[in-house]
Amino acid sequence: LWIVMGKMYCIILVTKIIKNIYVSKTATKTVSEFEYDAPSMKTAVPGPKSQELLRQLGEIQNVGAVHFFCNYEESRGNYLVDVDGNRMLDVYTQISSIPIGYNHPALIKVMTNPNNVSAFVNRPALGILPPENFPDKLFESLLSIAPSGMSRVQTMACGSCSNENAFKSMFIWYRNKERGYASPSEQEVDTCMINQSPGCPDLSILSFMGAFHGRTMGCLAATHSKAIHKLDIPSFDWPIAPFPKLQYPLEEFVRENAQEEARCLEEVEDLIVKWRQKGRPVAGIVIEPIQAEGGDNHASPDFFSKLRNIARKHGCAFHVDEVQTGGGTTGKFWAHEHWGLDDPADVVSFSKKLLTGGYYHRDELLPYRIFNTWMGDPSKNLFLSEVLNVIRRENLLEEVTRSGKALLQGLYALQTQYPHILSRTRGQGTFCAIDTCNDATRDSIMLKARNKGLFMGSCGEKTIRFRPALVFKEYHVHQLLNILNDILAEHK
Amino acid sequence: LWIVMGKMYCIILVTKIIKNIYVSKTATKTVSEFEYDAPSMKTAVPGPKSQELLRQLGEIQNVGAVHFFCNYEESRGNYLVDVDGNRMLDVYTQISSIPIGYNHPALIKVMTNPNNVSAFVNRPALGILPPENFPDKLFESLLSIAPSGMSRVQTMACGSCSNENAFKSMFIWYRNKERGYASPSEQEVDTCMINQSPGCPDLSILSFMGAFHGRTMGCLAATHSKAIHKLDIPSFDWPIAPFPKLQYPLEEFVRENAQEEARCLEEVEDLIVKWRQKGRPVAGIVIEPIQAEGGDNHASPDFFSKLRNIARKHGCAFHVDEVQTGGGTTGKFWAHEHWGLDDPADVVSFSKKLLTGGYYHRDELLPYRIFNTWMGDPSKNLFLSEVLNVIRRENLLEEVTRSGKALLQGLYALQTQYPHILSRTRGQGTFCAIDTCNDATRDSIMLKARNKGLFMGSCGEKTIRFRPALVFKEYHVHQLLNILNDILAEHK
Repeated sequence: LWIVMGKMYCIILVTKIIKNIYVSKTATKTVSEFEYDAPSMKTAVPGPKSQELLRQLGEIQNVGAVHFFCNYEESRGNYLVDVDGNRMLDVYTQISSIPIGYNHPALIKVMTNPNNVSAFVNRPALGILPPENFPDKLFESLLSIAPSGMSRVQTMACGSCSNENAFKSMFIWYRNKERGYASPSEQEVDTCMINQSPGCPDLSILSFMGAFHGRTMGCLAATHSKAIHKLDIPSFDWPIAPFPKLQYPLEEFVRENAQEEARCLEEVEDLIVKWRQKGRPVAGIVIEPIQAEGGDNHASPDFFSKLRNIARKHGCAFHVDEVQTGGGTTGKFWAHEHWGLDDPADVVSFSKKLLTGGYYHRDELLPYRIFNTWMGDPSKNLFLSEVLNVIRRENLLEEVTRSGKALLQGLYALQTQYPHILSRTRGQGTFCAIDTCNDATRDSIMLKARNKGLFMGSCGEKTIRFRPALVFKEYHVHQLLNILNDILAEHK
Repeated sequence: LWIVMGKMYCIILVTKIIKNIYVSKTATKTVSEFEYDAPSMKTAVPGPKSQELLRQLGEIQNVGAVHFFCNYEESRGNYLVDVDGNRMLDVYTQISSIPIGYNHPALIKVMTNPNNVSAFVNRPALGILPPENFPDKLFESLLSIAPSGMSRVQTMACGSCSNENAFKSMFIWYRNKERGYASPSEQEVDTCMINQSPGCPDLSILSFMGAFHGRTMGCLAATHSKAIHKLDIPSFDWPIAPFPKLQYPLEEFVRENAQEEARCLEEVEDLIVKWRQKGRPVAGIVIEPIQAEGGDNHASPDFFSKLRNIARKHGCAFHVDEVQTGGGTTGKFWAHEHWGLDDPADVVSFSKKLLTGGYYHRDELLPYRIFNTWMGDPSKNLFLSEVLNVIRRENLLEEVTRSGKALLQGLYALQTQYPHILSRTRGQGTFCAIDTCNDATRDSIMLKARNKGLFMGSCGEKTIRFRPALVFKEYHVHQLLNILNDILAEHK
């Protein structure tokens, strides 16, 4: 009886706290002048205009994944406006790829600067004929935020191409080591032309169950988040290690979680040995700092640091895939900076919020023979330089840390209030997530939220993921929590 | 004796014709007003500024493939200006990816139109949140030039991603057929997550020796042009058929070439049967209309038409890779339109001159489960729409046919004049090539040409390839032939 009463008291208390936190519908507007105040809904989503456009696009393409059509001209900051005039607080931001919100004035300035026209109109083949300002722009943009230990960077057009080419760099590096940096044999040169070993060696990349590294065929062989990504596509026989399944709240499961991480690391070493014996040695280990698509799965800095040591011990390259976690959303520019590694990664890949794809790498991984026509797009580097200026000028990493804290606290409070619906609140910066009791509930909450002006993303089986832009402020956190609270209160 | 005298007479005659053709250094300027008159060289290439920038970029990236640095602001039409003020006639055009020359006024207009700003500043995740004008822009651009039989199109960010996803579409289509369009089994769903069959089936793509389809791991397994692309990268056990090696001039080797094509087609059928027996059935056949990177290898319309029938007969999809040949450079918008197929291809992929990557496909190949974050870039579709307007307004396909004819004739004449250096002149539209006696000679001619203001590309082992923009006119052809003639005359 005491326990039940205690719980009830607790819920009442939490409700009070939440009421206090959420008195923010009329809160002072602290965001940049150019932004809207709040969501504003005119129709259910998708509205009639979106539905008509869906029909039109459906004649050309599969539209199964399209949510609605957008009016990007009218969208501002954290608010996405659709073609039916609905204005939503967007905490999914084009699958986490809009760094500083919609139509940021600084980016519009880049576009309208006559000095920049040529970079947009004449897309060069960067690998053979780079523009004059290319080294400068790289220093200003990507090199200025290079992760520790990374002095070299290769741009690419998208996340998948970044990871594909990072894998290739690791394979080439591994084979160069194996043959003592000698020239390849005639047999290697001949056999590679017909896809046979030793020229095309039986090397592998070790990845983790739940991982997502992209959907081209190399990346896809390291992706294990959803069957829908992989079904019917031929793949490679590469080792797949378990990713730790942590229990929450972390402070209550310290021993269990440490054991779980140790178990996964042990399995990694076993797989490396097993695949070497099989004749398919592991050239590289690839891992996300937080498994995003796979359900926002976290592990401790200790886990990653030990994993890095295992890679070192077995002569495998260590590739940190920051395509979704990079760009400041965890409160540091790179999520793996939270680990405090003594021995840096060998490769760090990026895309999305960085606007250009690519990867950093250590000197030893000379990207010899990494090439394609475009090798990125210098017009994206121009935008990135300006995004970095805005991040520095507006102290957006501090903002993210502050907003992230408020978001996590609010989600914890909701979880305590609705324990039958919500669990496993987790996050770093504004890179947050919460689980629901099942996928139907998750999907229903998301649809209701959308109709109330809150656009969120999903991941894993029953997880809601939050991926706001870096200009997401405490003011927006409260809007988000208010809407979620309303929906949960109505939820049967 | 008569034969020798006949040959000498012939050379004298050809020299006269060439002299007549090439009196064009002061020819009337017929190109758009905004363009330069002629090449203008100030330093050897790379000049001192390029060398300094090479040193700077070398600290960040491998610069082994960089020719020189460019001043894209000053480049115009067919003329590429480098950072040392050298102005070259560019017949390589960023590996064939600049459709209507540098800084075309129509494209600058697109950039400076305030209505377009949002498309550049807010890159959407097209698969979930397309912009309002997306269906319209697709109809205006890609759908307006769809190859016969192709009503559906999927955009992608680059050529490799286009081919990777086209392959995936063919695999999915093939497996859907195999299981009678039923839902996948539980076993398929489970095994695909760990890269095992039947979920990840042992299917293959049949490609051709000499082919180039891109350098991500799926594409690379179908690429067989140079060892440098493939060495050290794991691959798939997929069948590789011989591509016809035609003898030139075609009219002298009609019987031999027909036999050669028949031999290759026979081998294709044998491989399909063999790989089916091996348990790795061929889901699709991929081929370039002209093997570009592999050395500008041509085959007859009859060959391609019979190949298409073989694909149909064996239930394989037929994928025409127009990444390099598409966009008007052969005189038709798609090179495979020259074949006059009764039964259209199943997939046609594109990139480069189209500015956006992607692929067309027949209705049956529903690209179900083809997805990534960006799925292309709508700002590139804006440029493409305008490029198509210019092509139509300025009748550029006719222009290409006219210039291509002049280029081929001029190359034939040079080949006749310098038979110890040149051979196998071939081409369609301005998509032309000529072989040299060996790679050292080829490379030496190309460097000399560059220093005289003519920038060309190479392919295969000893081939020079010509890939001018669609605004390349007869006037430019004569400039090109003049420079080549000067170099060949000096060549020992």
